[in-house]
Order: sequence, then C-alpha cells, then structure tokens
Amino acid sequence: MRRILTLFLLLPLALLAQTEDQRQIEEIFSQSLTNGKSYSWLDYLSNQIGGRLSGSLNAERAVTYTKQEMESLGLDRVWLQPVMVPKWTRGVKEYAYIESGPGKITPVNICALGGSVATPDGGLRGRVVEVNGIAEMETLGREKLEGKIVFLNEPMQPDLINTFQAYSGCVNQRYAGALEAAKYGATGVIVRSLNLRLDDLPHTGSMSYGDLPAEERIPAAAISTKDAELLSTMLRLDDKITFYFSQKCRVFEDVKSYNVIGEIKGSEFPEQIITVGGHLDSWDLGDGAHDDGAGCVQSMEVLRLLSETGYRPKRTIRVVLFMNEENGLRGARKYAEVASENGEEHLFALESDAGGFTPRGFSFDCRDDQFEKVLSWKQLFEPYLIHLFEKGGSGADIGPLKNGQTVLAGLRPDSQRYFDHHHAANDTFEHVNKRELELGAATMAALVYLVDKYGFNSSEIKG
Amino acid sequence: MRRILTLFLLLPLALLAQTEDQRQIEEIFSQSLTNGKSYSWLDYLSNQIGGRLSGSLNAERAVTYTKQEMESLGLDRVWLQPVMVPKWTRGVKEYAYIESGPGKITPVNICALGGSVATPDGGLRGRVVEVNGIAEMETLGREKLEGKIVFLNEPMQPDLINTFQAYSGCVNQRYAGALEAAKYGATGVIVRSLNLRLDDLPHTGSMSYGDLPAEERIPAAAISTKDAELLSTMLRLDDKITFYFSQKCRVFEDVKSYNVIGEIKGSEFPEQIITVGGHLDSWDLGDGAHDDGAGCVQSMEVLRLLSETGYRPKRTIRVVLFMNEENGLRGARKYAEVASENGEEHLFALESDAGGFTPRGFSFDCRDDQFEKVLSWKQLFEPYLIHLFEKGGSGADIGPLKNGQTVLAGLRPDSQRYFDHHHAANDTFEHVNKRELELGAATMAALVYLVDKYGFNSSEIKG
Repeated sequence: MRRILTLFLLLPLALLAQTEDQRQIEEIFSQSLTNGKSYSWLDYLSNQIGGRLSGSLNAERAVTYTKQEMESLGLDRVWLQPVMVPKWTRGVKEYAYIESGPGKITPVNICALGGSVATPDGGLRGRVVEVNGIAEMETLGREKLEGKIVFLNEPMQPDLINTFQAYSGCVNQRYAGALEAAKYGATGVIVRSLNLRLDDLPHTGSMSYGDLPAEERIPAAAISTKDAELLSTMLRLDDKITFYFSQKCRVFEDVKSYNVIGEIKGSEFPEQIITVGGHLDSWDLGDGAHDDGAGCVQSMEVLRLLSETGYRPKRTIRVVLFMNEENGLRGARKYAEVASENGEEHLFALESDAGGFTPRGFSFDCRDDQFEKVLSWKQLFEPYLIHLFEKGGSGADIGPLKNGQTVLAGLRPDSQRYFDHHHAANDTFEHVNKRELELGAATMAALVYLVDKYGFNSSEIKG
Repeated sequence: MRRILTLFLLLPLALLAQTEDQRQIEEIFSQSLTNGKSYSWLDYLSNQIGGRLSGSLNAERAVTYTKQEMESLGLDRVWLQPVMVPKWTRGVKEYAYIESGPGKITPVNICALGGSVATPDGGLRGRVVEVNGIAEMETLGREKLEGKIVFLNEPMQPDLINTFQAYSGCVNQRYAGALEAAKYGATGVIVRSLNLRLDDLPHTGSMSYGDLPAEERIPAAAISTKDAELLSTMLRLDDKITFYFSQKCRVFEDVKSYNVIGEIKGSEFPEQIITVGGHLDSWDLGDGAHDDGAGCVQSMEVLRLLSETGYRPKRTIRVVLFMNEENGLRGARKYAEVASENGEEHLFALESDAGGFTPRGFSFDCRDDQFEKVLSWKQLFEPYLIHLFEKGGSGADIGPLKNGQTVLAGLRPDSQRYFDHHHAANDTFEHVNKRELELGAATMAALVYLVDKYGFNSSEIKG
C-alpha cells in the first residue's frame, strides 16, 4: 500500500520534471538555431584570424579575441592560463617531384609534417621504397632501406563506418614513420595523407622523433592521396625512379601562450566543476574551422545558450579553449596540473574536437553507474535526432583530467566528411554548415544542462 | 516441456539467421564503400549530362545512359516505359532589379518558377506589396493588391530539426502564390527562395495556376534569400519603390519520355514486386546531383550490391527511375497505372529523394503490423549508425502505389544541408560526398534484402 502511494505521489513530479527538461532543451535548440553566435564567432576566428599554429602570432590573436568575446558574455570570471608551447614553422612552401628519367619530372603535392626537420640545403633526392605501414619496414630492414626515401602508403580503411577508427588504424605511420625509418638509415619519409578521398591536398599533422639525437632526424612530409597513388604506380613500373623534396621548416625555442578560460559560478555546488572545451590552436594550412574552431565556438556557445535561456547553473560551468592540442598537448596538461594543484573537483568534462558536422551523440569515458545515469537522459535527445550514447574515448584535451571519478565525454558528429578537410588547406569556414554547427552547440548545452541539474550520483535525484 | 524443447530447437536457428543477416548487410556496406558504382554513375549524370528537366534533350540523354548502364548490370530485364510529359523552358536568363528612385537601380537574383508564364515583352514593372505567406493576401484583399507585384516573403522556420518540415510549412506560397495573387488582380509574384541560409541563389520549383484561364495567369519568380531580405528592408524604408523583372519562359506541347526500369526476377515469389527508385528528371539550374541524381544511382546500386554480394532475391526486385517528378509526376502516375493494368502485386516500394547525404533511417507509410515487422530489423542497422525508423511519408513517386497493402518507405538522409542546394544552381556533383552517397545506397540495399528475405507477413517467418 505504501509503495502504491509513493508511486502516486512521485508520478506527477516525475512527469513535471520531464516536461521542464523537454522545455529547457527545446529552448536551447531554438535559441541556437535562430539566434546563435557560434557561426559568427567561427567566421571571425577563421576569416579574420585564420590558421592558429601554437606559438604563432595568429594563435595569440585568437587568445585575445576569444577572451574579449567571453568577457562580453557577462560570465562570472574570464582569465588566461599561461602555458609554454612549442613553436614550429613551415617556412616557404614545400616543393617535390618524381623524376622518372633525365628531365622527366612530375611535380607532386606535399607538405612537411608538423615537427619535421627541414631537408638539407638544396633539398633531398633519393630512390624510393614503398611500404604498407610501419610494420613492413621491419621485414625489409636496413639492407633495403638505408639511403632510401621510405614511402609509407597505408591507406585508411574505407569500409569502417566511423572514419576516426580508420584514422586510428594508420595514423602511426605519420606519427612514428620518420623515427622508425631513421633507425634503418633511411634519408627521409613521405607519408600518404590520411584522407579517404582521392584528391590533391596534402594533410599535415604531428610527428615525433622520440629520443632520436638531432643529427639522426630525417625530414618527413605528407603527400596527397592522388599523388601517393601516382607514385605507387610509377614505382611498380620502374623502381629506379627518384623522388625529390625540399622543405624549410624550423623548430624555435618554446614560447609563452595561454588557455582561455571563462566560467559561471554554480549557485548550489560551486566547488563542482563542469568543463566544456575545444582547442584554440590549429594547423597552419587551412583556417582551422573544423579542427577545432568549431569546438571552441560551440563550447563558448554552451555558456551563452544556458544564460540566454535563463538557466542558472547549480554547479560551476567552465569553458576552456585549450592551447597546443595539435603539436604538444601542453595546454591540456597545464589545465589538469593547475586543477590538481588547486584541489579542484571536476564532475564532468566535455570536448568537441571532431568537426562542426551534424551531431550524432556522445561517447563517454566513465564508470558503468555513471553511464547508466547518462542513458536515462537519452530519450530527451531523440527529437533532435541524437541517438548515439556509447562508452568510448572522449578527447585529447580533457584526457589529462581522467581520474576514475570525473566523467569524460566527447561530442560525436557525423564523421563522413571530417578527413576530407582534416589538417589540410581546405579546413576552411565555407565547409562548415551553419545549422550543423549550431545543432552541435545545442546538443552539448543540453547535456551540460542535464549534468548540472542532476549530477551523476544516482541517489541524488532518482532511486 | 514441449515449449522448452521448441525453444531449444529454434534458438540456434534464430542465432544462425541473425548472423547470416549481419554478414550479408556487412558485405553490402563494404561493397558499396570499397567498390561502389553510385558515385561514378552520378558523376556522369551530373557532369556529362547535367540538368535534366522533363522534355529536354538532357532528360532523353539520361534515359539512354541509365538504360545502358542497367543493361550492363546483367539484370533479367531492362525496359523503357513511355509517358507523355510537360515541356517548359526557361529561355534566356531572367533579369530583375529594385528601383528606389530615378536611376537608382539595385539588381537582384531571381529565377522563374517552373511552369510560370513569361513577363510581357519588355518585362513587368510595378509597386510591391509584401505578405508573409498566402493567408495574408486575404486580409489585404483586392484593394491593396490590384495592379501590384505581390512579394511572398514567408521564411522557412529555422528551429525545426527536420528541414523538410520547414519546407512543407511554406512551400504553398511558391506553388499557389501566383494563383491566389491573380485572383486579387496582382500583376506578378516574387517568392522568397525556400532556403534556410542567406545567400544569393534563387531556388526554382513547381507552381500551378490551377484552373485559371490563360489570360489571367501572372508571372512568378523566386528571389534569393539575401535579396528577399534586401527588398523587405527597402520596402520598410519606402513602400513606393518599384520592382522590375523579365523572364522568357514558355510552355510547349507535351512530349514523349520514359521511365527507365530494370529488374531481377524473384526465384521463389516472382509475382511479388519490390520497387526501389528515384526520379531521373531534375530542375535545370544545377545538374540535379542531389535532387535526384543521388536517388537514381543509389537505386541502381541496390540491385548491383545485391548481385555483387551473391544474393539471389526470392522476390522480383525492380529499380524504377521515374520521369517528371519535378513538374508533373507523370512518370509516377504512369508506373502505378501500368502496374494496376497488369495486376502487379507490389509488396514494397522504397524511394530515395531527399539528397545524397548521410543516411539516418527511413520513414514508413504502412500498417502497424507491417511497421512492427520493420522494427524487428532495426538493430541490424545500428552498426551503420542508422537509427531512424518511424511512420510518416514515403515519397512523391511511389505515392500512387498506395493501396493499403503495399509498404511504402522513404530513405531519410541527414536534412541539414538539403535546402542549401534544392532546385538551385548549386545542386551540383561537387556537393555530394562519395561516402555519404554510398552509405545511403547500402542502407537501402540492406532494407531491400531484409524485405525480400522475410516479407511483411508476420506469420511467414517468426511467430
């Protein structure tokens, strides 16, 4: 009898709460789609500032701009968190060709990988050995690779639905290709661009020489997928063709930069922090609109949407624009380090760093009981065609916050077009669709709202 | 005891069947993404043929091309189904401007609506009355509208997640605006383009004069959203400004054209027909890549994918490329008429006519028991991020097949970018992403496979 009574008492309350959540989320989406700021912020970041490689003047302009914009939102606090970042510059445009005979030259599209050394003065020329990823180098050994340019030509697997999985499957050839090839005495490496399309754009990205002494480091460049196919075909016809490339990139001393942070203090649990962010730096070839201008403006928009819809957070909600995700992750490490020093309690961290495409859902790095709580909100997202709630990775910048308590999550937009633009000259504003960007911001704001309101402690609200 | 035994006997079979379905669907997706033909077919249709308005030479070239390609697939039968279609031509490019004072002229971007009459020789000039959709005309009446150009400026509602809903909400101003305005003695109509973005592209589309006598028909054109905003602003500042436009469109006698049809005969139930299709005609401003080249090549690809993965259909599977969806629906009516004459039994009809974007699922026009059957397959689509299975509309071309028995369904791709391109000069091949197109084809093929294998009769396979 008592049980039945409880049920009757709780039912209307539950229905009421549900309706309030539905209404709040509807207002968030409506505000984002009719009166959003994310697209115009991205326009400025992309078209007035442009590519924002760590340590560049543009990166500092982006810091100044986003700090100003956050200040204009009337947050409780906006500040810069200093962090030393690497400074690598591309220098004059790279140049490369295949030489298939005396005077028979075919220019190809390449770009230096981020962190690579320059080619020697006058460029680097050599015979080419093609390998299908790093593993094959071991089979060939020093005998076949010494003095050669190693051409790492492992394509992304096209029949994986999630293109990030295809990326993970072969990104190591870009990151560690030069390190491994140098061990076998190769003179340089050319890496197939990590792109599922065949096109003319080389895609840069980070690489590492590990502990390799400076004098053993060899230059590394990405080649467009079309030219990778061409080079591969020409090698099959004649393995004596030579490859020439020239790049003038340089590493400088670390420079001072900043994470840009703004927050609304929580009204009930100000000590509990919800962080939402993206990374402010980008590669230099495009304007970094998808990677990760989109994530930055969406994160800023989360705070604006909550304010504009009249929601007063119970917990502290913080937007963090991380510096130096692309080639160092220094901003992410600094943020986690300072949080730890200050004894801050992060309840939740959400990252958007997979492009400004139609949002499909989130992946969560958390405990099962926390994930169950998340799943109880899933149906609230269905009217917005957000279906994907799964356990998995979150994001590079919030990774250092992982401690077994904090729930980490990554926005999961549609991934089909992402690698067409990733780290290439066509990662530009005109390839971001306004509505898709705005839907992403609203989806993030809806989740932040629910986490703020209910937390993850299953006993806190519902039994 | 018997029940338990039955359970034990059936369980492994059920698991086995499940695994076979999973494997077949995986092969379909893999084949589409690694070895698909849809993208190269669309390339030819878009770039070698181009816009394919009913009655045009290009429409006939598209008939010839797709028939040839179907023949090369080794189907059991490929044929042309004759149908008389309207022939309307745009003529020389339209021209329009706003005149805000003597010699103060601002050119604007317009295009004639499909089916509109031409402006009088020398063009049409007049004062402008802006209305927010058709309903407002009634309020204003003949007194305010007579002798004026009516400017229908109802925007698409931006905070609807499904953009087709926003389109439905105001497409009537395009379709019936001229008919209604003519009744009040207006001299012409200018309609805001049905586009959620602000840009410079006018979007055409069909319109009708209903039973209006020829001499009472007034010219109708679409204006780009940016110029609609401009015109509206200028009218607010000075309602005495005039608008001028000139268009040379013409209606000719109906001409003979064709639906293009191919089929694989069913091995067990050849009399049961599964139809999958899109429309071959398109508007003339772009090359009709999304609307509906994508649906045509995806439909052809369904048959190819089933063949290539070694699946032998039990039922007859037919691809139909309908002629004249855009301005008449004559092909669709003819197909249903002939099917009825021949006493054909259509089990299922699936249409793709919402663009070549990432597929999200299907909407079904069917009975509840049939929909339940469909829902039993839903989980098979989850690995491909296909979540949307709902009741609703199917598609214009399969609509005439509706009879209370045949299950009708429409592919539901992501709709966010569709109206950026719909019926405009930028509905072109380069705006179709290869993977998104291929995923759509595979999603359709997977559903056709399941319908072919299990049918909709709930007693046929599982209790």
